[in-house]
Amino acid sequence: MKKTSNKVVLVGTGAVGMSFIYSAVNQGLAEEYVLIDVNTKAAEGNAIDIQDTMAVLDKPFTIKAGTYEDCKDADLIVITAGRPQRPGETRLELIADNSRIMKGIAEAIKASGFNGVTVIASNPCDVLTTVYQQVTGYDEHSVVGAGTTLDSARLRRLVAEKLNVAPKSVNAYIMGEHGDSSVAAYSKATVMGQPISKYLAEGKITDADLEECWTRAIRMAYEIIERKGATYYGIGVCLAAISAAILRDEKTTFMVGAKLNGEYGQKGFYTGVPVILGSKGWETIIEWDLTAAEQEAFKKSCDALDATYQKAKQAIA
Amino acid sequence: MKKTSNKVVLVGTGAVGMSFIYSAVNQGLAEEYVLIDVNTKAAEGNAIDIQDTMAVLDKPFTIKAGTYEDCKDADLIVITAGRPQRPGETRLELIADNSRIMKGIAEAIKASGFNGVTVIASNPCDVLTTVYQQVTGYDEHSVVGAGTTLDSARLRRLVAEKLNVAPKSVNAYIMGEHGDSSVAAYSKATVMGQPISKYLAEGKITDADLEECWTRAIRMAYEIIERKGATYYGIGVCLAAISAAILRDEKTTFMVGAKLNGEYGQKGFYTGVPVILGSKGWETIIEWDLTAAEQEAFKKSCDALDATYQKAKQAIA
Amino acid sequence: MKKTSNKVVLVGTGAVGMSFIYSAVNQGLAEEYVLIDVNTKAAEGNAIDIQDTMAVLDKPFTIKAGTYEDCKDADLIVITAGRPQRPGETRLELIADNSRIMKGIAEAIKASGFNGVTVIASNPCDVLTTVYQQVTGYDEHSVVGAGTTLDSARLRRLVAEKLNVAPKSVNAYIMGEHGDSSVAAYSKATVMGQPISKYLAEGKITDADLEECWTRAIRMAYEIIERKGATYYGIGVCLAAISAAILRDEKTTFMVGAKLNGEYGQKGFYTGVPVILGSKGWETIIEWDLTAAEQEAFKKSCDALDATYQKAKQAIA
Amino acid sequence: MKKTSNKVVLVGTGAVGMSFIYSAVNQGLAEEYVLIDVNTKAAEGNAIDIQDTMAVLDKPFTIKAGTYEDCKDADLIVITAGRPQRPGETRLELIADNSRIMKGIAEAIKASGFNGVTVIASNPCDVLTTVYQQVTGYDEHSVVGAGTTLDSARLRRLVAEKLNVAPKSVNAYIMGEHGDSSVAAYSKATVMGQPISKYLAEGKITDADLEECWTRAIRMAYEIIERKGATYYGIGVCLAAISAAILRDEKTTFMVGAKLNGEYGQKGFYTGVPVILGSKGWETIIEWDLTAAEQEAFKKSCDALDATYQKAKQAIA
Repeated sequence: MKKTSNKVVLVGTGAVGMSFIYSAVNQGLAEEYVLIDVNTKAAEGNAIDIQDTMAVLDKPFTIKAGTYEDCKDADLIVITAGRPQRPGETRLELIADNSRIMKGIAEAIKASGFNGVTVIASNPCDVLTTVYQQVTGYDEHSVVGAGTTLDSARLRRLVAEKLNVAPKSVNAYIMGEHGDSSVAAYSKATVMGQPISKYLAEGKITDADLEECWTRAIRMAYEIIERKGATYYGIGVCLAAISAAILRDEKTTFMVGAKLNGEYGQKGFYTGVPVILGSKGWETIIEWDLTAAEQEAFKKSCDALDATYQKAKQAIA
Repeated sequence: MKKTSNKVVLVGTGAVGMSFIYSAVNQGLAEEYVLIDVNTKAAEGNAIDIQDTMAVLDKPFTIKAGTYEDCKDADLIVITAGRPQRPGETRLELIADNSRIMKGIAEAIKASGFNGVTVIASNPCDVLTTVYQQVTGYDEHSVVGAGTTLDSARLRRLVAEKLNVAPKSVNAYIMGEHGDSSVAAYSKATVMGQPISKYLAEGKITDADLEECWTRAIRMAYEIIERKGATYYGIGVCLAAISAAILRDEKTTFMVGAKLNGEYGQKGFYTGVPVILGSKGWETIIEWDLTAAEQEAFKKSCDALDATYQKAKQAIA
Repeated sequence: MKKTSNKVVLVGTGAVGMSFIYSAVNQGLAEEYVLIDVNTKAAEGNAIDIQDTMAVLDKPFTIKAGTYEDCKDADLIVITAGRPQRPGETRLELIADNSRIMKGIAEAIKASGFNGVTVIASNPCDVLTTVYQQVTGYDEHSVVGAGTTLDSARLRRLVAEKLNVAPKSVNAYIMGEHGDSSVAAYSKATVMGQPISKYLAEGKITDADLEECWTRAIRMAYEIIERKGATYYGIGVCLAAISAAILRDEKTTFMVGAKLNGEYGQKGFYTGVPVILGSKGWETIIEWDLTAAEQEAFKKSCDALDATYQKAKQAIA
Repeated sequence: MKKTSNKVVLVGTGAVGMSFIYSAVNQGLAEEYVLIDVNTKAAEGNAIDIQDTMAVLDKPFTIKAGTYEDCKDADLIVITAGRPQRPGETRLELIADNSRIMKGIAEAIKASGFNGVTVIASNPCDVLTTVYQQVTGYDEHSVVGAGTTLDSARLRRLVAEKLNVAPKSVNAYIMGEHGDSSVAAYSKATVMGQPISKYLAEGKITDADLEECWTRAIRMAYEIIERKGATYYGIGVCLAAISAAILRDEKTTFMVGAKLNGEYGQKGFYTGVPVILGSKGWETIIEWDLTAAEQEAFKKSCDALDATYQKAKQAIA
């Protein structure tokens, strides 16, 4: 008899990971969930808290705290584990530490015999996705970074606010590093069927507005952290959307982290680019004809990323 | 032109309130949300974190941090505000304080001109729901306590685990105080079309099992708190289900807090009982023919509640 | 790489089959649909009509007209094929003909190498489900009749109308033949946590009401046919619910057609009984302790069914 | 107490109207439905057939056959009534007849005191929407034609097929008459963030392909009718999407029928153009900068429409 239901494993039951799980059960994404965390008490507590929704939500599922052995027959693994930056430490110390954590996770998953798709949201996301794929040796298409999915969602909302339209009516994209060096590819942005340049020409939005939206999108996490200490709902919903595209083989366009192999003139690491996302992970990288300025900014973002990745590689060597 | 979309106000943006909002946006419950909190930074930060999902979720909505003036044209208000117990203080001190907090909220809402339905999950839930209705003078049907919705959901899951069936196949109910004195009305429980007594007779479950499920359901919050410090996902989904029943006029059975007026021999306060829930709040209390033991336990639960309510009344006098 | 999306094949693209497909795409049930019909034009036309929804519905899917070869890797097959009764012909002629049609379908599916679950709604449903399982030799659990799912849904709604409550608040069940001899197992019916006998005792519903609900539920198809010529929306939604329980491994209670092997004192054919429904089909038949009168009526229903099944067997011998 | 649930009235319970209702209940669109048809038996039969789903579908609702008096407090009316073309008659005879039918419906709705939004899908759609708004004198924004919503959905799917991507990744639009003179505004089409011209330049699609997609989209109804006699599933889902945008105040872009008042150089009648759709109906017409060829084609489409509308006006004078 065939297996028709889906099993999802979450590694890292902090607020980001659990927001993904809570979004998933509210949307009826999968039928079986397993929570893994070095803090096994936290994994258990979260499993029970979610179990309390089972008799109420429309679509049935099971959930439990588990171990890496549960990855063996999983369809999808989502990794959000990692530690946050400590006061006084350098960014480099954080990267080294989280790279080592990711290496350990990658080895444990590999050892389980897992053969599904992995989605990675641990930060710094692009670097850790690259580390994971390198350590596991998995087909690069089956390893998917959260990339600039959330950054793009933020940009769409901010531009929508300026134009007073619904965020879903705005197609706007951020590429490159999930972080400060990311690029708003405004030359590809459309609003209700027209390029953003039309709205600029009509004075409905200004270059300064677009600059502001971009800057705010990149720094939105800080706006939230300043007010409530952490950010997790936005990324939780993005991870649910990425997971749905994979589990349902949607083949739709996402700005996730994919491994560049010459596209956009870059090679050897993951970063946020437009892809077709389906049951095998990211299937194709879409090559947009960026403007010269966008290309230049993307190159800079990639250079920064690659430098960081080289340091991560040393840390786990 | 008519108003067809729905506006929901949340008072109290702690983990419980925000889990409700996150469940609601993931389910597409309403179209407009307003967040109110004494900590305005927290309300703002949470509004932004949820705004980040707007471009990704299927069903459009808006959300912002607001003030009690936003209650004026709201359809539904959900109150989760209140402070937790401090180390060393007595339970009575907590009740007095939270009653005063609830009184202030009730007066602010009343002053806004609000004329919709209110759902209350602040603890101690039964007492604070009673306080809110007394202060506002609102039609008692339009004030709904979270009651024993979550307790019943927990009982269903635990009994389901013992019988190895889906939680949705178990109809089991907890009545009375949302707290230690609540009553499992097992004489009304059915599993896949048969009374629980049939399963007892067949040896598929024992009286000790049922006792254990009841005790664990009542103390489940402690199991979770011990592991992760707080509990919020379960209640968040319950509040979304209660809200949906009200906004969509479902007229289905819920174990929410309703004001007793002679039913089950009790009078003058809210507690968890079976009701029909619809667009006007709880419409009718269903009077079950409980066993003598269940009746006795319910009476004790109510006596405890009433005593606490009298103290709350003094605190806000 | 694992297969996570689901493929559903429909055999018979009449109004019943297509209402199932339309319900399924509106609910986001599966990701791939194939339509098979002896009238290949009709299958093609229906595939195109549904394709027109692809750019509009939230959840992506593909659909095409196909052949039995498409069953090979399907997860679920739903069969609604069969011809309606012709004026002047005997019911026996119809049964013989539809049994031969079902035999042909069963052989074609078997030849494809299919190894999933089959749901059968062709009429007379119980007999044709039995024929299909006998011809294919498939594990009896993986062959599921629509049974009395629709009959029970009708009974719930009719009793709800009498009591002025929501249909979802009524648990009431029809067992036995999907047809005139079916049995309303009122001893198992509960409404908002109480047995129907409580409502009878309180005079809120009468025995005559219950009798009327039962009779109307059985004859509801005629009420509809008299007004619009055919009935298909109700069964379409039931087939979507049965399919969801199987594809998502829900393990919830359904009144589908399962093969009796001594349960309820019967043996050797399919009919509507309470089962646990999950990814392997019906997993267990639940044995209710019916009243003597209900048992007697169920026996009569089974006797009638068995006699018909013997004739069907001769027709395909 | 406020009204939070929504009431939808359907006028015309043929296959198109009922496919809309079936899509709506499967999606949980509204809470109350009323069916009106000159054939009251058909309205009753369809109401019962849909009632059979009430105990099975997740989201509760009520449905009944009714009269124009039910429009009084409705939030939304969807009109699909009208008769099909008879063999041998001229198109003009059909238009005259259906205009008179629409006039009668408009007067009956007006007399009820209705003050919500009306969506019209009766054919010829643009002309009959114009007639309805003229007869009722309703605010033109509150009257919405189905316009070219379905035509655009068809174009998106066909272009997606050529490019081997998901229909949801294609933004492509048909404007003007819902009929043979409609215009594919390819200059506004984008696929995965790039204008269709990029795909033409790269040879991934040809001008002949685009021409073929346009022609097929316009004539898709004939492809379906030839195979199954009528087309209804596609339009049913489009009507559900239009209704959702109105009931939930989505403010998203739709290609519905809006009344031109100088936009695109046209005036005085409804036709398919891009609008922002929300709770008040179409709120703003978006003026795209079409190419000269597109403008010319749109003008021709409007000229044809206006001529027909003048004849409709005479028929109902």
